[in-house]
Amino acid sequence: MPIQAISWSPSGAVRIIDQRALPEAEITRDLESAESVADAIKQMQVRGAPLIGIAAAMGLVTATREQRSASRADFLLRLKDFAAVLNAARPTAVNLRWALERMLRVADGTSGEGGDLWERLRVEATAIWEEDRAMCRRIGEYGLTILSDDANVLTHCNTGALATGGIGTALAPIYLAHEQGRRVHVYVDETRPLLQGARLTMWELLHAGISCTLITDAAAATLMRQAKVDVVLVGADRICANGDFANKIGTYGLAVLARHHGVPFYCAAPWSTVDASLADGDLIPIEQRAAGEVTVMAGRPIAPEGAAALNPAFDVTPARYVTGFITDRGVVQPPFGN
Amino acid sequence: MPIQAISWSPSGAVRIIDQRALPEAEITRDLESAESVADAIKQMQVRGAPLIGIAAAMGLVTATREQRSASRADFLLRLKDFAAVLNAARPTAVNLRWALERMLRVADGTSGEGGDLWERLRVEATAIWEEDRAMCRRIGEYGLTILSDDANVLTHCNTGALATGGIGTALAPIYLAHEQGRRVHVYVDETRPLLQGARLTMWELLHAGISCTLITDAAAATLMRQAKVDVVLVGADRICANGDFANKIGTYGLAVLARHHGVPFYCAAPWSTVDASLADGDLIPIEQRAAGEVTVMAGRPIAPEGAAALNPAFDVTPARYVTGFITDRGVVQPPFGN
Repeated sequence: MPIQAISWSPSGAVRIIDQRALPEAEITRDLESAESVADAIKQMQVRGAPLIGIAAAMGLVTATREQRSASRADFLLRLKDFAAVLNAARPTAVNLRWALERMLRVADGTSGEGGDLWERLRVEATAIWEEDRAMCRRIGEYGLTILSDDANVLTHCNTGALATGGIGTALAPIYLAHEQGRRVHVYVDETRPLLQGARLTMWELLHAGISCTLITDAAAATLMRQAKVDVVLVGADRICANGDFANKIGTYGLAVLARHHGVPFYCAAPWSTVDASLADGDLIPIEQRAAGEVTVMAGRPIAPEGAAALNPAFDVTPARYVTGFITDRGVVQPPFGN
Repeated sequence: MPIQAISWSPSGAVRIIDQRALPEAEITRDLESAESVADAIKQMQVRGAPLIGIAAAMGLVTATREQRSASRADFLLRLKDFAAVLNAARPTAVNLRWALERMLRVADGTSGEGGDLWERLRVEATAIWEEDRAMCRRIGEYGLTILSDDANVLTHCNTGALATGGIGTALAPIYLAHEQGRRVHVYVDETRPLLQGARLTMWELLHAGISCTLITDAAAATLMRQAKVDVVLVGADRICANGDFANKIGTYGLAVLARHHGVPFYCAAPWSTVDASLADGDLIPIEQRAAGEVTVMAGRPIAPEGAAALNPAFDVTPARYVTGFITDRGVVQPPFGN
């Protein structure tokens, strides 16, 4: 069974599994305010483009619990403040902005006072979550069509149940293949620096009983040369109109290597990941994260004191390297419009 | 000033810097027997193809200290036992075997009893070390010819003073460029799983005052796409007659990426790394190391319990990806004969 990465607490807080603590500890956190949800996103206790969007939408509901008796105008004012706090948490994933804009639009379009708006937002956040679950399943079903019965899949980062409200994006076809009794095997890039592959993807695949093998990121090339990889499946944090897309650092290198070795390379993502306002990948803002994520590991320095490090969280893969985009609207090709 | 990675202790033991402890601690170890030298090589307290060869040759001298009053026949018998112990320490690097065979050949060709043979071996081990220092310098000088004045170099693993008896192989041109006042900058792949780039290359470059930036292995592709890399310089553990070569896992991927982006890709290694007995790279034995090197970091698990991992220590880069081989005999092209 895939894990459930997010839920409501009995008191209406956003309940998450702290993904920074996995796989050593399974810690549940109840986030009680917009700030605490934003912090959890910044610190990557909650991560994965779709899950960030859900967490932000739910965070708006949690944050405005205290505003239910407020006037409409005051409620909307506070709501926009909270949305701004959440929107600033991470710059690259489009789902965050998309979910927040949808919540604000719904609030604007709902009549009544604070209490009415809050009820409507709660319904909308839950709808975003449920749509995400359904979206994951559709991606899985479309993705199944490109997977052979005993496929060896290479994946990067975490695009599974821990990254979404459902069974994931790039991992969704793998979950469904396993559900159908197919013999799928997954090579998992560890995904430095934060090791989402080693810590999260391996954890959820093992939980689900799916055959998987961990490799260092730099070992992927040789596996492809040895013809051990039938297909590469990755997620996306933002897809431009022309099909260029941002995803976890290392994705672009995999795309080049896949092309070089004749291995099909698919990007799996919800349609909401498309940002048609950006013509191409050069326009995607790339988050630069702290050097300490590279130079310190499990609290211990792995580089000498004073070592400079570059730590771009994402890279951009041009559309020409992508065999197809597995979305909840089918396996599609650019250009994309919203 | 580059660091000195190996020396004799006053009592005739092999004195090393424990490279597993860097950069957190600078621990010097005196290895008193063939077994302890072999263990240090296995555990990668001593690593780097040239340095392993030097350590093994010196280890034979240290191990036979007690055999100086032995008969010629007994001395040679024990010497071969010690050489077998050392030869089994690591399978991929050819320098280890090369240095041991040279020592055995010299012993066989020297007349006299144990004491005479031992004196001759001590001279030979010291010669191997001194030749290595000179070899590094020559590689550096030939390598300078392919470096522009303000080159941005990308390197992988550690091929510097910590990998040799001198200023390194792939890092040698960088040391000489810096010595000449050129503005060279080095991007250092951290080199998972054992992080020789982060721990060792960054450490020795910072010690020498050379400008350097650490990156995760998976970030190299994007740097090349952004045209931030002028040249890739890597070492080699074994070079075949046709120019295929084994080097640290991740090297092959860099070679493909360099080709794809039009970045020159050079392999720097001493001529002794050539193993002309192997026609091509498919014949190189590739050491598979323990999964725990991938799944555990600084004593803490980074993957869930029971996670399977592949951990090939090396990969093979076909000769067609290599712009040139920087050796102590010049910048050359295959085929190679010994």
